Amino acid sequence: MNTSNPVIEALVQRRSIRKFTDEPVSREDLTSILEAGRWAPSGLNNQPWRFLIIHKDDPRATLLSECTKYGHIIKSAKILICVFLDKDSTYNEVKDHQGVGCCIQNMMLAAHSLKIGTVWLGEILNQEQKVLDILNLPHEKYELQVVIAAGHPDQKGSSERKELSELILEDY
Amino acid sequence: MNTSNPVIEALVQRRSIRKFTDEPVSREDLTSILEAGRWAPSGLNNQPWRFLIIHKDDPRATLLSECTKYGHIIKSAKILICVFLDKDSTYNEVKDHQGVGCCIQNMMLAAHSLKIGTVWLGEILNQEQKVLDILNLPHEKYELQVVIAAGHPDQKGSSERKELSELILEDY
Repeated sequence: MNTSNPVIEALVQRRSIRKFTDEPVSREDLTSILEAGRWAPSGLNNQPWRFLIIHKDDPRATLLSECTKYGHIIKSAKILICVFLDKDSTYNEVKDHQGVGCCIQNMMLAAHSLKIGTVWLGEILNQEQKVLDILNLPHEKYELQVVIAAGHPDQKGSSERKELSELILEDY
Repeated sequence: MNTSNPVIEALVQRRSIRKFTDEPVSREDLTSILEAGRWAPSGLNNQPWRFLIIHKDDPRATLLSECTKYGHIIKSAKILICVFLDKDSTYNEVKDHQGVGCCIQNMMLAAHSLKIGTVWLGEILNQEQKVLDILNLPHEKYELQVVIAAGHPDQKGSSERKELSELILEDY
């Protein structure tokens, strides 16, 4: 392992953070996070992702917290980055969802490098229609992909992974 | 933008590389790339990704090059990282594909940080059945997600992105 490589260090050390301090996220840091998402790769370079940012004091944050059993995380977050597919820009379901995955990961990694914690909230997709209504977005144009909750960490993340030997189908 | 931040620098500067030099990719670097993929996040931490590595001199590389119109890129690559979903580990189509996207991006970013170029080959998914046959993998268990071609860059990558203002649904 190249542990002196700061990029690889970030890739292997980033963890989900579900509790946040009251420290605000600066507009500069938020812009860096969104810029990182913007530069994600996508099939045919179609860049189908769209972002909508909700700040903690926005009344819509409370409404969104009621759309998921992880509402307490939404309430603790300083910022919610809601990510959508623009259906007018999609071309292939599998590849568009993979591309959005790259985009999400870019934003979470940028945040990590700025000492901002994030967690990918996916369970809220069960309430996609409600979320679109709260955000006043047309259902025929946008597909909810994820809500990323972000803020300065008030916990250490911890989660484990399978060993590489379990993921490799053939010795390399 | 935090341009002095090496992680954000990698996130915004990585580009697809489609031409490679003859310099081999060391086993140490390959392991670092796979380790980075291993640490990607996934819904319920299900880690559904599996990897199969094909080296340039493996006769299967030639067979794979015949499965895509981008065969010349496969032939130029020193290493192919074939990524699959293990259907016994999947739980939600959208989130599993997003998770694989994170995993792909982690590997491409790790490679970039090691001065190894990569490109995500998605068009080969049209020949998924053939690819599974070439690699002798059971169709009922594995779903092809991507072939990442990798090697030391013999070109500068170039591709552009939409402006952030085009991706933002509301001022933040």
